[in-house]
Amino acid sequence: MRATSAAGQTFSADVVSSPSTWFDRWALGLIRRRIAAAPVQFVLWDGFALGPEIGPPIGTFVIKNRPALVGWLWDPDLYFGEAFMFGAIEVRGDFVGVLEAAFRAVRSTKPRPWWLWQGSNDEQAARENVHHHYDLGNDFYRLWLDREMVYTCAYFPTPEATLEEAQIAKMDLVCRKVGLRPGEQVVEAGCGWGALALFMARRYGVTVRAFNLSTEQIAYARDRAKREDLDGRVEFIDDDYRNLTGKYDVFMSVGMLEHVGKADYPTLGSVIDRSLRANGRGLLHFIGRDQPAPLNPWIRKRIFPGGYAPALREVAELVFEPKGLSVLDVENLRLHYAKTLEHWLQRFTDASEQVRHDFDDAFVRAWHLYLAGSEASFLSGWMQLFQIVFARGGSNAIPWTRVIG
Amino acid sequence: MRATSAAGQTFSADVVSSPSTWFDRWALGLIRRRIAAAPVQFVLWDGFALGPEIGPPIGTFVIKNRPALVGWLWDPDLYFGEAFMFGAIEVRGDFVGVLEAAFRAVRSTKPRPWWLWQGSNDEQAARENVHHHYDLGNDFYRLWLDREMVYTCAYFPTPEATLEEAQIAKMDLVCRKVGLRPGEQVVEAGCGWGALALFMARRYGVTVRAFNLSTEQIAYARDRAKREDLDGRVEFIDDDYRNLTGKYDVFMSVGMLEHVGKADYPTLGSVIDRSLRANGRGLLHFIGRDQPAPLNPWIRKRIFPGGYAPALREVAELVFEPKGLSVLDVENLRLHYAKTLEHWLQRFTDASEQVRHDFDDAFVRAWHLYLAGSEASFLSGWMQLFQIVFARGGSNAIPWTRVIG
Repeated sequence: MRATSAAGQTFSADVVSSPSTWFDRWALGLIRRRIAAAPVQFVLWDGFALGPEIGPPIGTFVIKNRPALVGWLWDPDLYFGEAFMFGAIEVRGDFVGVLEAAFRAVRSTKPRPWWLWQGSNDEQAARENVHHHYDLGNDFYRLWLDREMVYTCAYFPTPEATLEEAQIAKMDLVCRKVGLRPGEQVVEAGCGWGALALFMARRYGVTVRAFNLSTEQIAYARDRAKREDLDGRVEFIDDDYRNLTGKYDVFMSVGMLEHVGKADYPTLGSVIDRSLRANGRGLLHFIGRDQPAPLNPWIRKRIFPGGYAPALREVAELVFEPKGLSVLDVENLRLHYAKTLEHWLQRFTDASEQVRHDFDDAFVRAWHLYLAGSEASFLSGWMQLFQIVFARGGSNAIPWTRVIG
Repeated sequence: MRATSAAGQTFSADVVSSPSTWFDRWALGLIRRRIAAAPVQFVLWDGFALGPEIGPPIGTFVIKNRPALVGWLWDPDLYFGEAFMFGAIEVRGDFVGVLEAAFRAVRSTKPRPWWLWQGSNDEQAARENVHHHYDLGNDFYRLWLDREMVYTCAYFPTPEATLEEAQIAKMDLVCRKVGLRPGEQVVEAGCGWGALALFMARRYGVTVRAFNLSTEQIAYARDRAKREDLDGRVEFIDDDYRNLTGKYDVFMSVGMLEHVGKADYPTLGSVIDRSLRANGRGLLHFIGRDQPAPLNPWIRKRIFPGGYAPALREVAELVFEPKGLSVLDVENLRLHYAKTLEHWLQRFTDASEQVRHDFDDAFVRAWHLYLAGSEASFLSGWMQLFQIVFARGGSNAIPWTRVIG
């Protein structure tokens, strides 16, 4: 992601363009038309400006040179992000608000059905994808995550709750949703820095085997388990979810499905099926969508290689149906993810000097766009956050009534 | 459904067969093998008996003549019901328990993919289908439904609640799930005898337009609205949901989707889409499944012509996705439907002399099988009951946290 890349040279803020021509202004008009319903202004490098088609502007896109303009025109899904991260596009005004307005304005993205095709993430690819994102260094994540280092959507009992409170509330919510009982055995697929595994063991008296492919996260989690004297009841395993063995009462996975990739959903279903006892149940928590669509290509390139956010029915059809697993309960927490991201973005912004020092300016801008864009995605309804509680089909060891946060 | 039909003659209990042969006994062995895991006994007309392959029997299937045996062997999904309703098969012991054990034992039903094909229920067909079931006479349903005449799954705050309490609790639950506010306009698709429409207007201060194709139900509902002085705020309309007009804050449908048929799901999605205001939301309550499968052919023939119970993902894919509607909340209440049916079956059994007088013996036996079989279906996990709360995609006028019963 360093600015030495070709994209970094193409979209550098230092590239100087000759004054805008009729073509540039026509191109800008096309770009504006695509998001005509968004009250935003557009300004070119030489000061040429187009106001919004409706209402007073809530912000301004500043396009600093011709490559940024042409990139945006040609493939906004990919090149807006590239130009932004390397400085050739700036946003003035309320960043999240501008992005939300733009997302709402795009009635339909440019169809790119080939993006829907995604090969299987084999174990090597899965490891590399995880490494790309989660092994940026625990120090980096500590700068802007909560105390427990939970890097998934929190649950805010009220919008005013703190991030710390909301992450604890989320962990407690998922435990109550699956009805953990003391002595039960839980397997966790994708455990991050281990907060939930340790929480389940400490608060609910279960034993946990937790899988993760991130070496940095696993090392952190093991160390924490030892310090908290929970290493006898929580085992952190540096391996792929596909290699999971044993039988469990509960299958828990919070924030891993996004990395599984649609091609491997049936495999995940088989893993769940072979791991669950007769009265087993489980929970999947993941970023999803109202309609199937590829993950934004810039996000796939720079942030989450191999990622995919499914529609609810894709998970139902490909993970649960083949093995006759029964969906008991689905909750959509998209506004809670927007709120979570609002906290992360604030903390990240507060820490940006440190991040710039440890990485570089392009990294700071890329992560700024990723966090603000994600908040806007959840606010605008482009993305959803689903928690699904499931059980083996026909099992009557299921709760009579469900729980709330 | 009168016993004068051909099926009634074929499967009459009066048909006398010659003593069982090696073929009959071999056929009985095959039938037993299909549900080998069910601890039930089988007895033929001449007393020949096969015990269960495992455990002591919890009940006995008595097959009273050869046509019943051959029918069961040839196509159990259809002819078990036919033979039962006309008296050629009896079940001794705990009827629901025997059926549940049989359902659990059938690992996979005979594949009959052609049953999955179902044409559209056009308006004439829809009217006839509704008439077949719901116009049996209000007096009949009054014999065994609750005081409010609610003919859908109830919500039991505890398993000990009465049916009366549980139907009120269900109506209140769906109102709270969609967050009804005084003065809002609600459209109800498929309103039965009007209990929910009147409840919403009385308890939550909304106005309601409620659609139904059953003339008997509509007449009852209109009369009740007038008596309760709610006819100014609740309008009962004798028409198909496809002819629904106007804009509403809430789209409510409890127990209609089962009659829509998969071919018309996209139409239902369009009707919802064109009826909802920008911040509109709604609820669908319906009988579903873990995996797509046709409705049992006997149920389709005798009880619910044109019916289909979908998998969750079929509804997500065909009703919600095409219009970008967003699923906020799904709850599976299958054990509540089993409990509801337990109450209905008890009341129906208590009233069976009256029903036999008003209809005939085959009718009583058919409804006994339908109610007991439905209870067993929900107990065994063959059928599910889903409540889905949805909203227009991108609408942020949605509850911050969800509700429970």
